[in-house]
Amino acid sequence: MNEQFVKIPAEQERSYPITIGTGILSGLLARIERLFPKKSLFIVTDEKLVQAGHLATLTGGKNVPSYAITPAGERSKTMATATAILEAMEQHRLSRDTVVIGLGGGTVGDIAGFAAAVFKRGVPVVHIPTTTVAQADSSVGGKTGVDSSLSKNAFGCFWYPSAVFIDTATLKTLDDLQYRSGLVESVKHAAIADPEYFTFLEKNIDMVLRRDTKILEQIAGWNCRIKASVVEEDPTEKNKRRILNYGHTIGHAVESACDYQLLHGQCVAIGMIAVGMMEQALGMVNDDRIERIEAILKKLGMPTEIPSDIKMEQLMDLLLLDKKAVGKRPWFVLLERLGRVYCKDGRWAHEVSQEIVRQAIEKSFR
Amino acid sequence: MNEQFVKIPAEQERSYPITIGTGILSGLLARIERLFPKKSLFIVTDEKLVQAGHLATLTGGKNVPSYAITPAGERSKTMATATAILEAMEQHRLSRDTVVIGLGGGTVGDIAGFAAAVFKRGVPVVHIPTTTVAQADSSVGGKTGVDSSLSKNAFGCFWYPSAVFIDTATLKTLDDLQYRSGLVESVKHAAIADPEYFTFLEKNIDMVLRRDTKILEQIAGWNCRIKASVVEEDPTEKNKRRILNYGHTIGHAVESACDYQLLHGQCVAIGMIAVGMMEQALGMVNDDRIERIEAILKKLGMPTEIPSDIKMEQLMDLLLLDKKAVGKRPWFVLLERLGRVYCKDGRWAHEVSQEIVRQAIEKSFR
Repeated sequence: MNEQFVKIPAEQERSYPITIGTGILSGLLARIERLFPKKSLFIVTDEKLVQAGHLATLTGGKNVPSYAITPAGERSKTMATATAILEAMEQHRLSRDTVVIGLGGGTVGDIAGFAAAVFKRGVPVVHIPTTTVAQADSSVGGKTGVDSSLSKNAFGCFWYPSAVFIDTATLKTLDDLQYRSGLVESVKHAAIADPEYFTFLEKNIDMVLRRDTKILEQIAGWNCRIKASVVEEDPTEKNKRRILNYGHTIGHAVESACDYQLLHGQCVAIGMIAVGMMEQALGMVNDDRIERIEAILKKLGMPTEIPSDIKMEQLMDLLLLDKKAVGKRPWFVLLERLGRVYCKDGRWAHEVSQEIVRQAIEKSFR
Repeated sequence: MNEQFVKIPAEQERSYPITIGTGILSGLLARIERLFPKKSLFIVTDEKLVQAGHLATLTGGKNVPSYAITPAGERSKTMATATAILEAMEQHRLSRDTVVIGLGGGTVGDIAGFAAAVFKRGVPVVHIPTTTVAQADSSVGGKTGVDSSLSKNAFGCFWYPSAVFIDTATLKTLDDLQYRSGLVESVKHAAIADPEYFTFLEKNIDMVLRRDTKILEQIAGWNCRIKASVVEEDPTEKNKRRILNYGHTIGHAVESACDYQLLHGQCVAIGMIAVGMMEQALGMVNDDRIERIEAILKKLGMPTEIPSDIKMEQLMDLLLLDKKAVGKRPWFVLLERLGRVYCKDGRWAHEVSQEIVRQAIEKSFR
């Protein structure tokens, strides 16, 4: 018996730009072509973006091969859709010299990124997020993937974009509920990382709801800075990146329990308040943060209580299935104060006794 | 409009061990459990390995969740199979704390590696290659993937194993044609990298064909050293790694043209001789290397001519489809002498005029 070792070489640090503006979509294709000379482009989008005219604005009449996910939304976030996109790229005889452009919300970005990650063992991806949730969250950080028949984002890769372009004008066509629930990720960012940003949101919430592009650009900037600083520190979610899951542990369970009848942001809103109940039970709350978070979520028209038709035991079961569960016990991200996550012994997520979890969830029911 | 930059952090160099022995399979499960304490294991294998008793030898009666690819072989190397494996892992409620073990030949290793790369955005994979081709080639280097409806290895990732275990005893149950054609990769390694290894193969070819385990361990060692040194230098095939594709450009086209009626090794054998014809036409041959390569391939019972039922024009079309084609023109790896690939201006693969390609292919027909 003998043994040899094979070296896997180091990979150098690099970085990618996020460009934020209003009405920039029509110039992006030329810009991407300049960024990637001699590359073929392939656009992944969805039927809603096509209907809203955003695909036409991006291509400007140029003939760029594309795939429009139908129906739009999480229900299409499957291996079957990813495979259909990859086969479409093959049918277009695309080679390794291809850049995938993801034009759309979280589902489009996650699938486009995944397709780019596995096409010919990896080609660059450029994200053009068009929803509040994608502009705040999913377009930054390199998480890609699809859902399994049992859980969200079960299959995927870490695959970093080569560039991200945020055009706040694309938010104008977003339906109202999608628009508002996507802003929950902005509230989350402020709650975990920046009290000043939280105050800004409170002050400007009416302008935000009117979709004022100047305010939206500022919000996009804040979100990207916060998200980027967290993922830079811990790109593959070994530790600190978990703080981005604030409100998500219970949020994901609610999302699954209501069979995706509520949007992601609505469920995270419920999850943030539920985790507040835990913080309270643990004696960690000596300020008015829960009231302030609840007030802003209500201004966004978000639910803050668990719908009464969901069953307690089903929620507890789902919590044990969570992908971030380590050794099968759910861990929670807790606030120390507004803008600051509780960290103990270098850990940013904490096991909470079943009793306190159960209490907090019971208190969160409508 | 404003711009920010997000850092993608560096990744440190690391290495993985390749252990070579005979009859080591029965002890591997305990060894892998020691290497990965507290992790869940999941085995990907195929029906042939199960029938040959190798899965039972590995598990030793222990209850380890597994998936046996059916039917065995390239026909099953699809997204559908990868998805079925991933869903099976979900059904077993496996988390990120899982290690995938690939027990089998190239198809098993490529799919197992791909499943590991995308399950929960990536879990470790351990390869236990059981064929001559997998032990020589596919288990080292981190290429994973599946075929599309149009081309081989169209979708996949670079995902390095955490460990590789080669048990030459598993070769005893391999059917004769598979065994012999897998050895073509060993001939290729010797031809591109080591004249001493080539002489060793010539001298010991009868022992090799008798499946002498001592010789097989030596061959495995040689193959892994050569392959490892090449992939260490160029892990993602930007340049030098292409030398491993010696004989493969035409080989892949033949494989596709005969609709996979010939095995990979048989097609590479044909491709190596065809590329020899090119070297000759280019005036690059002033030794007896083509005769020596042909002689050893014939000892292995390999074809060295293109089957007469394949059409010239179909082959030329397929060459233009090759994944490694840059700007749609096929590039070829050429020998300078036995054990040494021709390198010019730092490039290891070269464009050859259509005329010479056509001539060489015509000469290669039966």
